[in-house]
Amino acid sequence: MNFCSHCGAPVRLAIPAGDDRLRYLCDRCGTIHYQNPRIVAGTLPLIDDRVLLCRRAISPRDGYWTLPAGFMENGETTEQAARRETREEAGAELTELSLYTLIDLPHIHQVYMIFIGRLAGDFSAGPESREVRLFEESAIPWESLAFPTIERTLRHFFDDRRRELPPGAERFSLHVGSFERWQAPARPD
Amino acid sequence: MNFCSHCGAPVRLAIPAGDDRLRYLCDRCGTIHYQNPRIVAGTLPLIDDRVLLCRRAISPRDGYWTLPAGFMENGETTEQAARRETREEAGAELTELSLYTLIDLPHIHQVYMIFIGRLAGDFSAGPESREVRLFEESAIPWESLAFPTIERTLRHFFDDRRRELPPGAERFSLHVGSFERWQAPARPD
Ligand SMILES: [Zn+2]
Ligand SMILES: [Zn+2]
Repeated sequence: MNFCSHCGAPVRLAIPAGDDRLRYLCDRCGTIHYQNPRIVAGTLPLIDDRVLLCRRAISPRDGYWTLPAGFMENGETTEQAARRETREEAGAELTELSLYTLIDLPHIHQVYMIFIGRLAGDFSAGPESREVRLFEESAIPWESLAFPTIERTLRHFFDDRRRELPPGAERFSLHVGSFERWQAPARPD
Repeated sequence: MNFCSHCGAPVRLAIPAGDDRLRYLCDRCGTIHYQNPRIVAGTLPLIDDRVLLCRRAISPRDGYWTLPAGFMENGETTEQAARRETREEAGAELTELSLYTLIDLPHIHQVYMIFIGRLAGDFSAGPESREVRLFEESAIPWESLAFPTIERTLRHFFDDRRRELPPGAERFSLHVGSFERWQAPARPD
């Protein structure tokens, strides 16, 4: 940030009175420009014991596999955002959505929220996907997943599927976690 | 938004190529300025059957009662944000936090995330609170709560407390919901 989005004057970084963090301040109009984390909303679409993954056609991580997910927009709910991303990237609709993983990425100012749901009908690759495919656990391309949030969500899912449950317990209840930082694995061939 | 925060040129509202929403565009440097919802992180602090509430000393809803909560900052996790707000507004620390309500407010571009936890030690009003107090259910000032997200979280809590549970079931598991819009109740005397 270089200029005030309200009045166009140059901004400077300083700690406002009564605050304890650096903010972009405008000396001309007095606006304090706060910056906040963004939500990445997505889904884990299921059909029986198979999971839908999309192979990315865009940067970052072009060519790697991911769950349908993207930045939540103003004016929608988290579930609406997750459904929209699933429609855009995988041409798919889901039923029985529930929140499944919530993963904080404080170093890049993101919060992932992945909903689990049942695939309803057909699917097809959108413009941001090279291909969309269903995978059994044994076929998941673990070495070619786009983001660690996706790997963690898939690991929770297969663990939860295998778990013995007391009667009445919910199989896919919420997992909350975070990554403080991560390294991208090497590019797949 | 009137000016580009990157180069300082005036922006205009238009739908970018390949997009389907109005965005602020900069014709000089080509930046598309996306705007995204913000997370409000907070807590429901408990001690036995009592709940801690703060009476607001700031606008909006000055004088009304709320749970400690505020905008999540860059560089922190949702739980860290909830703990920080509880420290700032109520001088309180919590143990055993878990996510309890997630409430979308799409009309004002906010997502509330309230964690439930046990109050550890003392508490005291911070600069944004007139007073901080513990309430039993019968004493909750329902007519003087600051926000509908706070009322809904408290209603879930007292309902969940009363509920008969199968053995092994978790008492305070996540509630997900939304408000499409709301009206502020009349100001208390
Ligand atoms: Zn300004
Ligand atoms: Zn510009």
